[in-house]
Amino acid sequence: MPFPERAWLRWARRAARGMRHPALRLGIGDDAALFDLGRGYEGALTTDLFLEDVHFLRAADPAVVCGRRCATRALSDLAAMGAAPVALFLSVAFPAGAAERWRRDFFRGVRLAAAEAGAVLAGGDLAASPGGLVADVAGLGRVRRGRALLRSGARPGDLIFVSGTLGLAARGRALAHGGTAPGNAGDRAALARHRHPRARWALGGALAERRLASAAIDISDGLSTDLDHLCEESGVAAVIDAARIPAPAAPGGLELALHGGEDYELLFTVPPRRRAALARLAFAAAPVEIGVIRAGRGMWLRRDGRVRRLRAGGWEHFRSTMRGK
Amino acid sequence: MPFPERAWLRWARRAARGMRHPALRLGIGDDAALFDLGRGYEGALTTDLFLEDVHFLRAADPAVVCGRRCATRALSDLAAMGAAPVALFLSVAFPAGAAERWRRDFFRGVRLAAAEAGAVLAGGDLAASPGGLVADVAGLGRVRRGRALLRSGARPGDLIFVSGTLGLAARGRALAHGGTAPGNAGDRAALARHRHPRARWALGGALAERRLASAAIDISDGLSTDLDHLCEESGVAAVIDAARIPAPAAPGGLELALHGGEDYELLFTVPPRRRAALARLAFAAAPVEIGVIRAGRGMWLRRDGRVRRLRAGGWEHFRSTMRGK
Repeated sequence: MPFPERAWLRWARRAARGMRHPALRLGIGDDAALFDLGRGYEGALTTDLFLEDVHFLRAADPAVVCGRRCATRALSDLAAMGAAPVALFLSVAFPAGAAERWRRDFFRGVRLAAAEAGAVLAGGDLAASPGGLVADVAGLGRVRRGRALLRSGARPGDLIFVSGTLGLAARGRALAHGGTAPGNAGDRAALARHRHPRARWALGGALAERRLASAAIDISDGLSTDLDHLCEESGVAAVIDAARIPAPAAPGGLELALHGGEDYELLFTVPPRRRAALARLAFAAAPVEIGVIRAGRGMWLRRDGRVRRLRAGGWEHFRSTMRGK
Repeated sequence: MPFPERAWLRWARRAARGMRHPALRLGIGDDAALFDLGRGYEGALTTDLFLEDVHFLRAADPAVVCGRRCATRALSDLAAMGAAPVALFLSVAFPAGAAERWRRDFFRGVRLAAAEAGAVLAGGDLAASPGGLVADVAGLGRVRRGRALLRSGARPGDLIFVSGTLGLAARGRALAHGGTAPGNAGDRAALARHRHPRARWALGGALAERRLASAAIDISDGLSTDLDHLCEESGVAAVIDAARIPAPAAPGGLELALHGGEDYELLFTVPPRRRAALARLAFAAAPVEIGVIRAGRGMWLRRDGRVRRLRAGGWEHFRSTMRGK
């Protein structure tokens, strides 16, 4: 995701203002940049960091899981643009302490995630890290011209949808980091979401192809944070309904769903006239309607008959590392 | 540069074997991957890490210099493909100790290098680093279809050229890291090359456009290392002439020119029948002929009337960090 930290994003946009290139259609500020690919297509390009002790703990998960999660970040950004993944580029610096076996398994995890998404591993860079493992994945995708899903397209009256249960990955992460064995089916589902997230490129592609969504973003930093980004980019407000948010059936489930990151579900808005067409999409997990876009600014949560202000409380990497949290 | 470490490159290629995408023309193993852009163009995409204490020392150079050098790595890979830079994507994780001013100046350095090359800053990612500064730049360029300069095109009899003086950056780096004030014009030139390298995208573009070069690579890791890559990819041998290598006029100048990295000059091969056309290119610094491609394997250095085996001795990031060296 390009420059998630709000102030930096504003600054970077100002700094990049006036930079134009005829081949580029969309620059800083969305899930990916867009450029013309010819033959009725546009290319989407995104880069995502994956740093030890910030985005993952090396001791908590198998190497192949770390590689898979690393790749999923870029694949999910492409999904949020409605772009089909084409290629991934892996820049990685391994610490001296990472065994050859671990390095190869990490690489295999990246390749596995790419292959699942129909993408190829097409390049990257390699270095030695004096600190922890450092990775950055660039994702290249393609989408039909003019069909890409932007963050900026939501209009008052549009319905807000999410593509699946939220908060599972945060719960699974807590289990994995605590070394806790999963006690029940809910725990197992949470651990599976944390370890084997799958970006929603098929759904994103269908939303774009059929012009079902007016705006979209992937939920990598948590619903509250990513909905906030979408509202700000679209210049609108949002009201969501706590009872409708698909959350884990566990104590604190709603909080996890609101603020837990790394679910890699899609958050998207649908004009009311397209709701019936969306319902006809045959996906294993049907998208869930959780609220509505309003004119104005800010986010609001309806809960137990009352409507309160909702603040972005997701996991912004820039403010806290996992360890420091 | 994709996977510079030889064994890893071989392994990564095997691992990625069988991965195909109709939109992708060239994957792992060259300075950049290539994909179809439509309208007679191909896109070139590369990613390059820039890590504190591996690729740079934060204390040794101003922030804007660090940012500029960071961006130059990707711009130089595009130059080596003969691609015109279109956009850069900056993924960066700043350590807590990097002041806001330093961060902005680093960002400005990246923007400056992009602007000089006619490219825009189009996205990236941002995080906090628990260790040193971590950056990765993805570079997107474009080149006319079928004209990209590959590492694999050198043939026996082709002439070997470099685009300018080699070893200057390594000498400048030693001055900057030692805190030594430049004593003469040679020192000043060396420090300038280290601090303000400029990728040779204009020359690379001209070589590609006019079909002057049969193969090319950028000299980021040192002449001996990058010539070795080119020979291996082309399946050929090389003989170069010590007396013709443009080197700093200082003790140890030839060694610096052979093995010092980060000059970001181009190394390219030219079929003999194209030599005259190359000579007609009007560039400020004329390319210098340093040797010839032969059938076989390996590199050979002619010096004082004798020909000896030349081994790749450049600065391979994976084997040693700056501090550890």
